Amino acid sequence: MKFCSKCGHKVVKAIPAGDNKERFVCGNCGEIHYQNPRVIVGVLPTYQQQILLCKRAIEPRHGYWTLPAGFLENGESTLEGALRECYEEANAAVINPSLYALYDIPRINQVYVFYRAEMAKPEFGPSIESTEVELFDEAYIPWDQLAFPVVQMVLDQFLHHRKSGEYQIIREDIKGPWQGRREQA
Amino acid sequence: MKFCSKCGHKVVKAIPAGDNKERFVCGNCGEIHYQNPRVIVGVLPTYQQQILLCKRAIEPRHGYWTLPAGFLENGESTLEGALRECYEEANAAVINPSLYALYDIPRINQVYVFYRAEMAKPEFGPSIESTEVELFDEAYIPWDQLAFPVVQMVLDQFLHHRKSGEYQIIREDIKGPWQGRREQA
Repeated sequence: MKFCSKCGHKVVKAIPAGDNKERFVCGNCGEIHYQNPRVIVGVLPTYQQQILLCKRAIEPRHGYWTLPAGFLENGESTLEGALRECYEEANAAVINPSLYALYDIPRINQVYVFYRAEMAKPEFGPSIESTEVELFDEAYIPWDQLAFPVVQMVLDQFLHHRKSGEYQIIREDIKGPWQGRREQA
Repeated sequence: MKFCSKCGHKVVKAIPAGDNKERFVCGNCGEIHYQNPRVIVGVLPTYQQQILLCKRAIEPRHGYWTLPAGFLENGESTLEGALRECYEEANAAVINPSLYALYDIPRINQVYVFYRAEMAKPEFGPSIESTEVELFDEAYIPWDQLAFPVVQMVLDQFLHHRKSGEYQIIREDIKGPWQGRREQA
């Protein structure tokens, strides 16, 4: 950030009165420009014993498999956003969604919120964002071709929970290095 | 938003290629300026049977009671942010935090994440953001003096869960009108 989005003048880094962190502050109009983490919302869609994955048609991690997920938009709830992403990326409608995981990735200022949900019918298809969309049995999940660590983590946990028959909502920090950071702004 | 924070030229509203929503786009450098919901993190701190509340020293809702909560900062997890807010606003340290509620307020582009946690000792105090900090028995919670509907909702649920002995993680949309919107930028 170099310029004030309100008046167009240069910003400087300064600690505003009553604050304890450096912010971008406009040298002209005084506007304080806060920068905060973004929320990524997604779905873990299942049809009977199978899990729906999408092969990414876009960078980063083009050609790798992922769960339908994307940035939460203004004006929608995390659930609405997750269902929208599932529809946009996989052309799939789901039922019975329930909150399943909250992963924090503070290194890249992201918070992931996943819902698990069922597909009433095995209806899905490719999209602008996915070259292929497929249902996978547990034995055929492409573990070495997953797009992001967070996808591996939520799938791992889900299969573990499914085996035990007890689904607990996950809350975890992901601290390690992260490949394929998805930049938005 | 009127000006590009990257180059200082005027932005226009346009739908970028591959997108389906209007964004602020720079007429000069082409930068797309996404705007996304913000995350507010908080704690519901308890000491034995009592709940810790803070009387707000700042607008909005100056003088009303709230749980320690505030905007998630870049570089921290939702748990780290919640513990930081508890310390900053109530001078209180907590133990055994666990994820407790995710409230979506899409009308004002906010996602609330609350943890519940225990205080090992009844040690707390006022701060720049709180004129008073107090432990309340259930019978003395100032319901008509709470700062925000989300505070009422999480307290309601907590007391209900405590009575039943079963704490379930809450995920709910708050769709109604909202007083005292906390503007950050």
